Amino acid sequence: MISGSQGSAVEPPDREPEARVVELERRIGATIRTEADHVAVEEPMEVRVNGSPFAVIMRTPGEDLALAAGFLLAEDVVRDATEIGAIERCLDVEPEARGNVLNVTVVGDAVDRLAVRLGERRQVITTAACGLCGRRTIESLRTRAATVAGEWTVPAAVVRQLPLALRQAQRTFDATGGVHAAALTDLDGQVLRAAEDVGRHNAVDKIIGHALLEGRLPLDRAMLVVSGRTSYELVQKALLGGVPLVAAVSAPSSLAVDLARAAGITLCGFVRGDSFNVYAHGARLSG
Amino acid sequence: MISGSQGSAVEPPDREPEARVVELERRIGATIRTEADHVAVEEPMEVRVNGSPFAVIMRTPGEDLALAAGFLLAEDVVRDATEIGAIERCLDVEPEARGNVLNVTVVGDAVDRLAVRLGERRQVITTAACGLCGRRTIESLRTRAATVAGEWTVPAAVVRQLPLALRQAQRTFDATGGVHAAALTDLDGQVLRAAEDVGRHNAVDKIIGHALLEGRLPLDRAMLVVSGRTSYELVQKALLGGVPLVAAVSAPSSLAVDLARAAGITLCGFVRGDSFNVYAHGARLSG
Repeated sequence: MISGSQGSAVEPPDREPEARVVELERRIGATIRTEADHVAVEEPMEVRVNGSPFAVIMRTPGEDLALAAGFLLAEDVVRDATEIGAIERCLDVEPEARGNVLNVTVVGDAVDRLAVRLGERRQVITTAACGLCGRRTIESLRTRAATVAGEWTVPAAVVRQLPLALRQAQRTFDATGGVHAAALTDLDGQVLRAAEDVGRHNAVDKIIGHALLEGRLPLDRAMLVVSGRTSYELVQKALLGGVPLVAAVSAPSSLAVDLARAAGITLCGFVRGDSFNVYAHGARLSG
Repeated sequence: MISGSQGSAVEPPDREPEARVVELERRIGATIRTEADHVAVEEPMEVRVNGSPFAVIMRTPGEDLALAAGFLLAEDVVRDATEIGAIERCLDVEPEARGNVLNVTVVGDAVDRLAVRLGERRQVITTAACGLCGRRTIESLRTRAATVAGEWTVPAAVVRQLPLALRQAQRTFDATGGVHAAALTDLDGQVLRAAEDVGRHNAVDKIIGHALLEGRLPLDRAMLVVSGRTSYELVQKALLGGVPLVAAVSAPSSLAVDLARAAGITLCGFVRGDSFNVYAHGARLSG
C-alpha cells in the first residue's frame, strides 16, 4: 500500500524520531560550562494530497508516513486504509526540503472529500499542535463521528499504570526532555504503539495513523494515553480513531470535557501515582 | 483606538481568563468521590479582518482583543498600533458564538498585507498552539524581521528568577493546573504583563498584542518568559515583537535554537532552580 513505484516520488524507509546535538552554555550558579546536549528536532513537513499542497506540519521527523495518514484522518479526508493508494516522498523539491515533502494518493470517496477540504483550506500551514486548520467557521468545528463504540470495562488500576507504560516507551524524551508522547494500549494497559513529537497532536496522529494504515480502525478495544493536557482536538482525534478511553497526565480543557461527554469517550485526567480524575463516562471503569 | 462605534459591532469590556467548574469522579486508590473542580475554558474565537474571515483560534477567553492584535502581528498583517483602526466584537453571529467573533479593522499598509495573507489562507482555522497557519510553502516560513536590537546585558541571577516571577503572576493555573503562561518582564525581571491560555502561543500573542496596542513595539528592553517548551513559532513571535531574550522552563526545539541564533535572540532553556542552559547569544548574560 505504501509504495514508491509511481511518478517522480519514491519512499525511503521511514525515519525514527530524531534528536540533534547542539552546543550550549550551562550556567550553574556562578559557573559557566560549555556543553553539548540533545534537542528534539523540529522541521516542517509538507503534505500534498493527489499532488496538491494541503498542509505543512511542524513536526519531529520520524514516522512521517503514519503522521500524514493520521493527519488526513483527523482532517476527515480519509476514513480507512482502502482510501490511501500510496504515500511517497517527493523528490521534485529543493535540496534542503528533501525528505520533508510527502504526497498522499487518495482514492474512492476520499477524492470528493479532498475537493471539499481543498476548497476550504487552500495550501494551509499547520503546526506542531494544530489539527483544525482549514475549517471555515466555528460551526464547522463539529466533527463527523457522533460517538465511539466500546462496551467494555477496565480496572482503575490499569488506568493508573498507563503513564508509566507510556514513559517506558519514550526514547527521545530521555535525550531531550523536550517532546510529547502518546501511546495506544490494549485493555490490559500493554502498549501497542507509542510515538513522540515536539507536538503532542502529532504524536497522536502518528499512532492512530499507523493503525489506519494497518486497517485496524475503529480502535474500539484500545486506550489512548498522552503525556500532557487534553484539548478539544485531542479528544476529536480519539473520536475519529474510534478510541473509547483517553487518559492524560495533566488537565483537560472545558471543550475536551464537553466533547468527550457528547461522544461517549471516557476521559481521565491528572493520572498520577495512586489517583486520577474521571471527567466523562466513568462507567467503563471497574474496581 | 479600540472602539465600538462602527457598524454592527460593539466592544464590551475585555474578559479575564476563565475557568469553569465541572463535576468529576475522583479516584484515589479504591475510593471514588464525586467532586467539582475547575477546568480551563477552551473556546473557538473567530478573527475577522476588515470583515473577512481570517482565522479561528482555539483559546481561553480573556484578553481577546490583545490576542487578536498579537496574532495579526505574528501573521505579519499589522506591524504597529497605527495600523489597527478598531477591534470590535461582532453581533451578527449565532447566539452561541456571541462574544467569540471579533472584527479587526486595519488601515494603511496593513490593507495590502491583508490582501496577500487572505489570498494565502482563505478562512483558516488555527488552534491553541498554531501561529503559522496559512503560509503557502516551507520556504514562506522564513520571517520578515531579520534580527532583534538590544545591546544590553542582564545578570544570570535575574534570568534564574524569571520562572518564579511568572508563576506568581499566574492565576488560572492555580485553579485548573491546565493552562500555559507567558510574561514580559523588564531588565530587572519585574513582570510588565502576564497572560494565560490553554495554548502557550496564545499566551505570548496576548502579552505582545497588548504591547502592540499600547504602541510599545519593538520590545527591545524586555524579556519573554514562558512556562513550557520553546518552538520555532515562539521564537518567531519574540522576533516580530522585537524581544531580545527568551527564557523557558523547559526545552527548546532544534528550529527554535536555529532561529534564535540567526535572529540575535538570547535563548535560555531549562531555567530551573539554580541553573539554566543558554542556546544562543549568551553575550547578553553577565555575572
